[in-house]
Amino acid sequence: MRKICVVITARPSYSRIKTALKAIQEHPNLELQLVVAASALLERYGTAVNYIKADGFHIVAKVFNVLEGENLTAAAKTTGIGILELSSVFENLQPDIVVTVADRFETMATAIAASYMNIPLAHIQGGEVTGNIDEKVRHSITKLADYHLVASQDAEQRVLKLGEEPTSVFNTGCPSIDLAKEVQGLNQLNFNPYEKYGGVGAQPDLSNCYWVVMQHPVTNEYQNSRKHVETTLEAIRQQTEVPVLWFWPNVDAGSDGTSTGIRAYREKYDLSHVHFFKNMQGNDFLNLLDQSIGLIGNSSVGIRECAYLGVPVINIGSRQNRRQRGKNVMDVNYSTQEITQAMNQIQTNPRPTPATIYGEGDAGEKIAAVLAKVELKFHKTIVY
Amino acid sequence: MRKICVVITARPSYSRIKTALKAIQEHPNLELQLVVAASALLERYGTAVNYIKADGFHIVAKVFNVLEGENLTAAAKTTGIGILELSSVFENLQPDIVVTVADRFETMATAIAASYMNIPLAHIQGGEVTGNIDEKVRHSITKLADYHLVASQDAEQRVLKLGEEPTSVFNTGCPSIDLAKEVQGLNQLNFNPYEKYGGVGAQPDLSNCYWVVMQHPVTNEYQNSRKHVETTLEAIRQQTEVPVLWFWPNVDAGSDGTSTGIRAYREKYDLSHVHFFKNMQGNDFLNLLDQSIGLIGNSSVGIRECAYLGVPVINIGSRQNRRQRGKNVMDVNYSTQEITQAMNQIQTNPRPTPATIYGEGDAGEKIAAVLAKVELKFHKTIVY
Amino acid sequence: MRKICVVITARPSYSRIKTALKAIQEHPNLELQLVVAASALLERYGTAVNYIKADGFHIVAKVFNVLEGENLTAAAKTTGIGILELSSVFENLQPDIVVTVADRFETMATAIAASYMNIPLAHIQGGEVTGNIDEKVRHSITKLADYHLVASQDAEQRVLKLGEEPTSVFNTGCPSIDLAKEVQGLNQLNFNPYEKYGGVGAQPDLSNCYWVVMQHPVTNEYQNSRKHVETTLEAIRQQTEVPVLWFWPNVDAGSDGTSTGIRAYREKYDLSHVHFFKNMQGNDFLNLLDQSIGLIGNSSVGIRECAYLGVPVINIGSRQNRRQRGKNVMDVNYSTQEITQAMNQIQTNPRPTPATIYGEGDAGEKIAAVLAKVELKFHKTIVY
Amino acid sequence: MRKICVVITARPSYSRIKTALKAIQEHPNLELQLVVAASALLERYGTAVNYIKADGFHIVAKVFNVLEGENLTAAAKTTGIGILELSSVFENLQPDIVVTVADRFETMATAIAASYMNIPLAHIQGGEVTGNIDEKVRHSITKLADYHLVASQDAEQRVLKLGEEPTSVFNTGCPSIDLAKEVQGLNQLNFNPYEKYGGVGAQPDLSNCYWVVMQHPVTNEYQNSRKHVETTLEAIRQQTEVPVLWFWPNVDAGSDGTSTGIRAYREKYDLSHVHFFKNMQGNDFLNLLDQSIGLIGNSSVGIRECAYLGVPVINIGSRQNRRQRGKNVMDVNYSTQEITQAMNQIQTNPRPTPATIYGEGDAGEKIAAVLAKVELKFHKTIVY
Repeated sequence: MRKICVVITARPSYSRIKTALKAIQEHPNLELQLVVAASALLERYGTAVNYIKADGFHIVAKVFNVLEGENLTAAAKTTGIGILELSSVFENLQPDIVVTVADRFETMATAIAASYMNIPLAHIQGGEVTGNIDEKVRHSITKLADYHLVASQDAEQRVLKLGEEPTSVFNTGCPSIDLAKEVQGLNQLNFNPYEKYGGVGAQPDLSNCYWVVMQHPVTNEYQNSRKHVETTLEAIRQQTEVPVLWFWPNVDAGSDGTSTGIRAYREKYDLSHVHFFKNMQGNDFLNLLDQSIGLIGNSSVGIRECAYLGVPVINIGSRQNRRQRGKNVMDVNYSTQEITQAMNQIQTNPRPTPATIYGEGDAGEKIAAVLAKVELKFHKTIVY
Repeated sequence: MRKICVVITARPSYSRIKTALKAIQEHPNLELQLVVAASALLERYGTAVNYIKADGFHIVAKVFNVLEGENLTAAAKTTGIGILELSSVFENLQPDIVVTVADRFETMATAIAASYMNIPLAHIQGGEVTGNIDEKVRHSITKLADYHLVASQDAEQRVLKLGEEPTSVFNTGCPSIDLAKEVQGLNQLNFNPYEKYGGVGAQPDLSNCYWVVMQHPVTNEYQNSRKHVETTLEAIRQQTEVPVLWFWPNVDAGSDGTSTGIRAYREKYDLSHVHFFKNMQGNDFLNLLDQSIGLIGNSSVGIRECAYLGVPVINIGSRQNRRQRGKNVMDVNYSTQEITQAMNQIQTNPRPTPATIYGEGDAGEKIAAVLAKVELKFHKTIVY
Repeated sequence: MRKICVVITARPSYSRIKTALKAIQEHPNLELQLVVAASALLERYGTAVNYIKADGFHIVAKVFNVLEGENLTAAAKTTGIGILELSSVFENLQPDIVVTVADRFETMATAIAASYMNIPLAHIQGGEVTGNIDEKVRHSITKLADYHLVASQDAEQRVLKLGEEPTSVFNTGCPSIDLAKEVQGLNQLNFNPYEKYGGVGAQPDLSNCYWVVMQHPVTNEYQNSRKHVETTLEAIRQQTEVPVLWFWPNVDAGSDGTSTGIRAYREKYDLSHVHFFKNMQGNDFLNLLDQSIGLIGNSSVGIRECAYLGVPVINIGSRQNRRQRGKNVMDVNYSTQEITQAMNQIQTNPRPTPATIYGEGDAGEKIAAVLAKVELKFHKTIVY
Repeated sequence: MRKICVVITARPSYSRIKTALKAIQEHPNLELQLVVAASALLERYGTAVNYIKADGFHIVAKVFNVLEGENLTAAAKTTGIGILELSSVFENLQPDIVVTVADRFETMATAIAASYMNIPLAHIQGGEVTGNIDEKVRHSITKLADYHLVASQDAEQRVLKLGEEPTSVFNTGCPSIDLAKEVQGLNQLNFNPYEKYGGVGAQPDLSNCYWVVMQHPVTNEYQNSRKHVETTLEAIRQQTEVPVLWFWPNVDAGSDGTSTGIRAYREKYDLSHVHFFKNMQGNDFLNLLDQSIGLIGNSSVGIRECAYLGVPVINIGSRQNRRQRGKNVMDVNYSTQEITQAMNQIQTNPRPTPATIYGEGDAGEKIAAVLAKVELKFHKTIVY
C-alpha cells in the first residue's frame, strides 16, 4: 500500500481535491493520510474541517498554525510554524508521497517540509498564471515538486517550460470540475440554503433569481481590501430587486479589512435583499451557482466551475488575471459603475455555452491513478 | 538611501558575497544591513561571523536558527525557525531590498520571509544546475525572487527560460572570482597556515607542494556520508609523500557522518602528512589553493575559483553535477582507486589554462550597481 | 538610565499597569521600553494597542504570537511562540529589568524568556489566589521572578510564604486603583459611551440607571463557556427595565464559546435594552462602573476597583475564588435564578462603603520607585 | 490502563528515572509512553537515547528542540520550541499523566505544555535547593505540577512550605539510588571501560586506583565556564600518579566553553594519565564510582548516589550549594590548590560511611505505585 498524505489548508482547497481524496481512499493500492491545517480548522473561516468530516473522511492529524494578526508578517510566521508542525506530522506518518494543493501562501509549508525531508511531493494545480503573490508561491512549489497534476493544457505547457521532466507532468483536469459535473443535471436548487447553512442577514425569496457574491482580499494590495469590497457592496446595495447571497472571504493578510468592510455596511445600510453565508458544502454551492443568474467577485470558481457549468461571471480586479477563461467571464475593475453595468448586461444576454477547459469531470480518478503508478523519487534536475 | 539587507547563513556564502558587501557599503546611495544567521554563527562550522567582523563589516542582527539533530527533519525545522526569526528582523529593519545568497536549504527562509512580506527580493547565483536538493531550493528561490544576479551566461539563460522578465536578470559574474583575482598575482603562499589558523593534526612542510581537500556531505544521500568521506580518507592515507591540508565540512544533514568519519580515521591511523583546518579567511584559502597541486573533494570552489586560477580539481561524486566547468576539473566517483589515479595524473600533467566562465573579477561592484538602480517591486508574473 | 522593559499581553493587563508606565516614563532615572504582544494587538480582543498609543506611550516592539484555534493546545503553542519572539526582542533591547503583569497564560512567555536570559524579572500582582489555571501561572512566575510588586497585604504574605526574600517583596497596591481614584470625584458619566465607543445592539437611555456585564470564559472549564454565558444572558434577557452594557470577553481558550453564545442570543432574542461593547479606555470604563447600579460577571475589576469605588458586584462562578474581597461583592453560581435574585437585592439595598484593600491610589509611583532603587540581580535561592 | 507519559530531556535525567520507567512498564494498571527530547538525542551530549533503547524501552516520540548557539537566548528559544513540539506530542498521545524530571531548563517546556493542556503533571525531584538557575526552574515547576515525587525529607518539607496540598506530595526517594543499590554488592569493576565505551586519550591502568571527574558548566556564570574547568584541569595535570577518568559535560549554555577548555588542554599538555569519556550507562558509571578513590566536580551524583555508596566527593563551586549532603562531601572553590589539597586528604583518610538521605533503593516502584493510585486532577489552589 502506497501511503498518500494530502494536506488541506483552506476551505477552497478542499473542493479542489475532494474527488481525488475519494478516489485515493477507494484505490486498492493507496492509503489516504489526510491532514487538515491552517484556516481549514478555524471557525472564522468556515470550519472546512466539519465538511471534510461530514463527507466521511478520516483525519489523521490537525495542524493549528495560523498566527493571528492582520499583516504580512503573520503570513510569513504562519508558514514558519507550519513547517515546524508538518515536519513532525510527516515524521510520524512516514508517507510515500505528500500532496499539496494549489497556491495559497501556507501550502509552501507543506512543500518545504516534504521536499526537505526527501519525501516525494505532488503538486495539484501548478502551472496556472494569476499575476499576484499566489503566482510566486505556485511556481516556486512547482520547482520543489516531483510530480505535477495540472488542470489544463495551458498549465501543462507552462510547467514544462519551467523545466520539469515531461514524465512528471500530468494533465488530469481539476477535481472541482468533477463536483460541477455531479450537480449539473439537477436543474433546480435541491436544498434550502437558509435552513441548511444559517448565516446572517435578510432571507429574500430565491425562487425567481439571485446573484452570488464571493470576493477575497488581494494580498499584494491588502490595505485597499476594505475599499475594494466597498465598491462591490455599493453596487449590490444600489440594486434591490434581485436577491443576493454573499459568501464571507477566507483567511489572508487583509481578510479582516474585507470582513470589517462588510460588517460596517451591514450596520450602516438597509440590505434587506442580501444574505451572508460563512461557508457551504461544495456540492450545494455549485448547485446554488448553477441555478443563479451569475457570480460576482474574484473567486477562481468563476473561472473554472462556472466555465464548465456555463454560469455568467463578473470578475473583479486583478486576482484572476491571466488565468485561462471561457466566454462566461466579464472582467471589470473595482468600480461600482462597471459592476452595475455588467449586472445589467448579464440580466439581458443569453446564458453562455459551457466549456471543458479545466477538465471533463474525472480528475479525481486520474489523480489517484497517477499517484498509484508514478515511480517514487525525490531527486530531480532541471531539463535544460 | 536605499537599504539593502543581506542575509548570510553559511561560511561558503560569505566568500560568494564579500566583495558585493564592500561595494554596497561604499556605494553613495546604498546602506548595508548585514544579517548573519544559521551555521555562519556556530563554532562547529567555523564561526564565519568572526571573519565577517574581522573584515570590518557591521552586523545589525544575528539569527540563531539551527536546530540540532543529524537528520532531515531538523533541516526542515531550521528553515521554519528561520522564517519566524527573519520576519521579525525584516520588520525591524524595514529594508528596501533583501538579498539571499545561493542555494543552501536555509536560504529559503530568507526568501519566504521577504517575499511574503512584500519586500523586493534579490537572489545571488540563481540559474545554476547541480543535480541535488540544492537545485530544488535554488530554482524555487528564483521563482520567489524579483531580481536575479547570476554568475555566468549559462545561468542567465536558465533563469530566462524559467520565465523571469529579462529586465530582472543580470549577469554580474560571481563575487568569489573578485577574491580570486586579488590573490592571483601573489605567486607564493604569503602566510603560515598553521600559525594563523591552528587546526589539529600533523604540520607537514608545505614549501614543496601539497593537496587541499574539502568534501561536503551530499544531502540526498546522507546516510552514506561517512562511507563517502572514507574513500577519500583512504586515498589520502595511502599516499604519504605529498602533504595534505584538509578542511572540515560545513553544516548539513549528514555533516556529523562526515565529521565522525574523519575523527575515527584520525584515531585509528597514522596521518602524519595531514593537517585539518576548521576554517580560513577567503583570501588566504584562495592563496593556498592557487599555490597547491590541486583540490580534492566536491566543493564548488573547484568549479568556480579554480577555473579562474587554473588550479587542477578532482571533483568527487554528484554534488557539482551539471555545473558548467572548465578544463581544470576531473570528475571521479566515490572510489579510492579513481581518486588515486586522478592524483597521479595531475602530478604529471601540465597546469590547466585559466577561464573566465564565472566572471572577470568585478562582480561585487556590478551587483551594488544593479541594487542601486533597479526599480523597487515585489509583484511579478511569469513571462509565458 | 535604567532600562525597564514592560510587556503587555492583554487588554486587562494594561489598566493594571498604566499609571506605573507613566511613572516609569517620568522617572528621571528610568527609561521605559514598552512591548505590546499577544491579544493586546488583536482587533477581536479590543485592540488594546490603540488605547496605549492614544495615551501617548511609545511602543518599541510589537509581538504577534497568538496561534488561532479554540483549544488548549493553541494556548500552549502561543506561549512557545511568545518565548521565541520575546527572547529576540530582549536581545535587541538589552533591558536592565523586565516587567511581567499579573497571571494570564502568555505572561509566562515573558517570565521564561527574561529569567533564562539572566535578565532581572519583576512581577506585578503576584501572590493572589483565585483557584483556576491562572493560579498555577501566577505562583510559577513568582518562583521565576526576582522582584515582587504585590497589590495587597494578603498577597504580600503569600509571596513571603512561597519562600521569597523579604527584601524582594513590595506591597505597592494595584495601579488599577490609581485610575479608580481619578474617576472617583466625577459624580456623573462624563462621556457618551455609544458615540465614543460604537459597539452593536440597542442604545438604551443611561440617564437613570444601568447594569454593566463582563464575563470571561474560565479556562479549566472551556467546553462549558457557552453554557455559562447563557445563564447570564438569560437573566439579562428576563429583566428588561434596566439598561445593560455588556463587554466582550478577552482572548482565552474558550473565548469563542463565550462569543458564539452571545452572538447566537443576539440573533435569536429581542435584546432591546442591551448594548455590546468591544472595549473601552480604562478611565471611561471606571467612570461607567462608578455610575452604574452594579457589575455582573467574573472580572477581577469587581474585586479590586469596585471595592475602592464601593460599586456592588454580582460575582459569578469560580474565577475570582479566594481573592480577597470587600463587602461590595455577592458571590453566585452559574444560575439564572441566583443572578436575578442578586440583581433584585442590589436594587433595594444601600450602596456598600468603599475599601482600600488593593491600594490607596499611588501604586504607579511606588512601582517606579522600587524599579529605580532595587539592586539588579537574577540569582536567588529559596529562603527555607 | 492509565497512560503515563515520561519526557526525558538529558542524559542525567535518565538515570534519575530509569527504575521508575521499568516499574511503570511492569505495573499492571499503567502504560508507559516514553518521549525522548532535547540533548538526550544528540551525539555531542552522549546520545542518551541509545542507552535508553539498549535498556529495552520503547520510545513513542523523539523531539528535537535544541537550538544551537552558545548563549542564553538559545536556551530560552529551545524551551519555546520544546513547548511547540511537546504540545503536539501530548495531543497525539493523550496521556493521563505527564511526568517531568528534575530541573534542567528544558523540563519547563514539558511542564508548561502539560499544565496548559489540562493534563495532570507529576514532577520528580522537586523541593531541592541548589542556589542556581536550576532552582528557579525547579520551584517554578513545583507550582505548575499536580503531584510531587520528592527524593528526601528535606525536599518534602520544602514542597509543603511552597503551599502544595499534603495529599499531593510523596517522598519516594530518588530512583538513582535504586541503581546504586544494584551495583553496591559487586565489589569490583565488572567491565573494561576503554573497550566498552571508547572515548579518547590515554588508557591508564585502573587496577590500583583512579579518580573520576565530572564538571558541568554553571549557567549563571557561563562566560567563566572555561576558566572554571581549567582550574580543575590544572589540578588533574599536576598530579600524574593516579589515573583519571574524565566525563564530558552535558548540554547547557556554556557547555561549549567547558568543552573548548578541555580540548585546548588536551592539545597543549601531556595528559598521559587521563582518559575522556562521552557517556556511560548508569550502572557501569555507578560501578566505576563505587570502585574509585573519589569523584571530583560538581555533579549531583556526588551528593546523592555517592552518599548511598560512601564514595568521597570533592564538590567544586556553587552548583550543588545547599543541597542536603552526607559526610562524604568536601566542598571547595574553583581553585587548583583547594582541589589538590582535598585530593591529598581523601587519599589518606578512611572511606566515609554510607547514608540513605536520598532513598533506600525502591524509589522506582514507589513512584509507579503513586502514579497508579493518585486521583487524576489538574486543578489546584495554594493551601495558604
